[in-house]
Amino acid sequence: MKKIITLLTDFGLSDSYIGSMKGVILSINPEVHLIDITHDIRPQSVLSAAFILSTVYTYFPKGSIHLAVVDPGVGTERRAICVATKDYHFVGPDNGVFTYIFHHDQDSKVYELTNKRYFRETISLTFHGRDIFAPVAAHLSMGLPPSKIGTIVEDYESIDLLEPAASRGILKGVVVHQDRFGNLITNISLKVFSDFVGNGSYEIVAGSWRTHLIRETYAQVAPGELLLVFGSAGYLEISENMGNASARLGLDVGSPIKIRKI
Amino acid sequence: MKKIITLLTDFGLSDSYIGSMKGVILSINPEVHLIDITHDIRPQSVLSAAFILSTVYTYFPKGSIHLAVVDPGVGTERRAICVATKDYHFVGPDNGVFTYIFHHDQDSKVYELTNKRYFRETISLTFHGRDIFAPVAAHLSMGLPPSKIGTIVEDYESIDLLEPAASRGILKGVVVHQDRFGNLITNISLKVFSDFVGNGSYEIVAGSWRTHLIRETYAQVAPGELLLVFGSAGYLEISENMGNASARLGLDVGSPIKIRKI
Amino acid sequence: MKKIITLLTDFGLSDSYIGSMKGVILSINPEVHLIDITHDIRPQSVLSAAFILSTVYTYFPKGSIHLAVVDPGVGTERRAICVATKDYHFVGPDNGVFTYIFHHDQDSKVYELTNKRYFRETISLTFHGRDIFAPVAAHLSMGLPPSKIGTIVEDYESIDLLEPAASRGILKGVVVHQDRFGNLITNISLKVFSDFVGNGSYEIVAGSWRTHLIRETYAQVAPGELLLVFGSAGYLEISENMGNASARLGLDVGSPIKIRKI
Repeated sequence: MKKIITLLTDFGLSDSYIGSMKGVILSINPEVHLIDITHDIRPQSVLSAAFILSTVYTYFPKGSIHLAVVDPGVGTERRAICVATKDYHFVGPDNGVFTYIFHHDQDSKVYELTNKRYFRETISLTFHGRDIFAPVAAHLSMGLPPSKIGTIVEDYESIDLLEPAASRGILKGVVVHQDRFGNLITNISLKVFSDFVGNGSYEIVAGSWRTHLIRETYAQVAPGELLLVFGSAGYLEISENMGNASARLGLDVGSPIKIRKI
Repeated sequence: MKKIITLLTDFGLSDSYIGSMKGVILSINPEVHLIDITHDIRPQSVLSAAFILSTVYTYFPKGSIHLAVVDPGVGTERRAICVATKDYHFVGPDNGVFTYIFHHDQDSKVYELTNKRYFRETISLTFHGRDIFAPVAAHLSMGLPPSKIGTIVEDYESIDLLEPAASRGILKGVVVHQDRFGNLITNISLKVFSDFVGNGSYEIVAGSWRTHLIRETYAQVAPGELLLVFGSAGYLEISENMGNASARLGLDVGSPIKIRKI
Repeated sequence: MKKIITLLTDFGLSDSYIGSMKGVILSINPEVHLIDITHDIRPQSVLSAAFILSTVYTYFPKGSIHLAVVDPGVGTERRAICVATKDYHFVGPDNGVFTYIFHHDQDSKVYELTNKRYFRETISLTFHGRDIFAPVAAHLSMGLPPSKIGTIVEDYESIDLLEPAASRGILKGVVVHQDRFGNLITNISLKVFSDFVGNGSYEIVAGSWRTHLIRETYAQVAPGELLLVFGSAGYLEISENMGNASARLGLDVGSPIKIRKI
């Protein structure tokens, strides 16, 4: 079956960086299926890349290879790694971009990429996406096991995920992503919410807005009205029907959201 | 022959929405060829999506499947449909996004998508693109006929296309799209124009600009000069050679254009 | 082996232009692999397209076809051409977009595209990307030799590449590209630099900033500090670690950079 490599970077689409990476991959495996996740990660935002990756990788067929290159430390001592889970391979820098993967799959194995035979011959100090990560992903797509490219490491990097914190009857979350529509995706999952609220009543405060209701769909409120929904990624989202909640409330990534028992 | 699915949405390329849809499709049909039309439709602009779709779908091989998801009513009672024409299948919400298709092909059949067997198991109330439309398109690309996924309906939605109106010697049109170059594409086709003007003389008024000439190519005027051409989609376009007509004239989607017999 | 066609244009991704070109190609060769380089070339900037193409085409497998359509002269007398080098075919307008290719490969052959049999039947005067270049690239991908589509010409167009100029102990270069991160890529290659500086000391002046050092990697300076590196394309780049050098220094494409022997 045809192998899939997905690409997630902060390289944008205005330059030739992505084209170079794809050319390198296709020179090794001309039959691979290349799928862009996004290249518009906020430059050097490892956390944002980690979050986006966590919301998308499970939709791909088993055996897919996910390449995630947001790499402010390129050219330093930071390691290059491959993460092998039961169903997928991930390739990228060891800077925490795979933190959610480690949380989701406790049995994942992490390999430091050391076998230069599978890198490009000349390695730029500023573009490992093209010279290390792309060729390694291509070789994995040809069936090469990660154990041929590196050795298992245990001390890989994780980032502190901003988990919601409950204290004194208040659950404090935070906006972790703002999408194109101005929807504000928080870090409060349905499970965290349900465990906190139980059968009781609650008030939710986001910026200047307060509500006691969570909706099921945008259209349950009139156009121009704010609402809260558990969105398609499974997290509580602040939205405006037919509008832009971020602009309306002046909130962005990092803004707090509070749930108070009443 | 390898099947093609095209994707046209307002989801942008900064989030993981498109990646999720592609992952779902490839999990059902790993061999399908995925082609992005655009994901930059103005958020929730069904009319804009309908127009862009109308200018592109005929260039694809017969048998292609066109997925068009601009869906402000997601999660409401609005139906999910598949439109079958002689040459193509279209999949998306029943909100008028296929209006031009119905005009172009009077024999098209419209199926309401009802057979949940071909949806994803869990259906989010806010993202039918991933949970209904993507898997249905994938199953169609495997050869499943639409009659297996739904039943024919006759009362599907159309939007009022803004057709040019002629009265008292004046043909009134409107700008329906502004492209990246600032070209203003109107709803006046060559046929409508010719039927109205015949062999007579005419004056064309767009904002503060008046002209008596339609050109054949941008370079027939000097750089920085305005011009009118019948563009590549077959409609009258207001352009500026090497410049941006929209910025120059202060016109945008919805702006009027008048043709007066003289 | 599956053939690859890359696409590089200034058409953006908001309209249906790219979708139309891909549909035309796939209608001729449904099996071809389509890879976007970028469609965000500054509108009508032939020089920028030429530079981006020069930094990416060599990474693709031999036999790939590179389509480059930045075409302000569309519809005029400017010719449509195919450039055949030892390893690749290039298709686009004869306006200098292939200048770097001619420099890199002195043995390249240039064919004027004249055989309308391989164009679309109706040729718009404003969109040769869809009606001439796309179908010609598709036919080349099917194995058709360029000699069947046109005849060799010798008087093709080149643009004056801004080569660095040395005089009185000063090497004057210029910024030729600004990438998404605000890195400023100059036209000073490692070879030009080494030939000029030899073993001596030097001072580099870019806007208000002076330095005596070239670094190997961004992280050799603190976050927020400026640095110079030979970037991944092999040219001297002005960067800011974790920041945007262009915004910091107020420099952009066309800005000068000077290297002075001291």
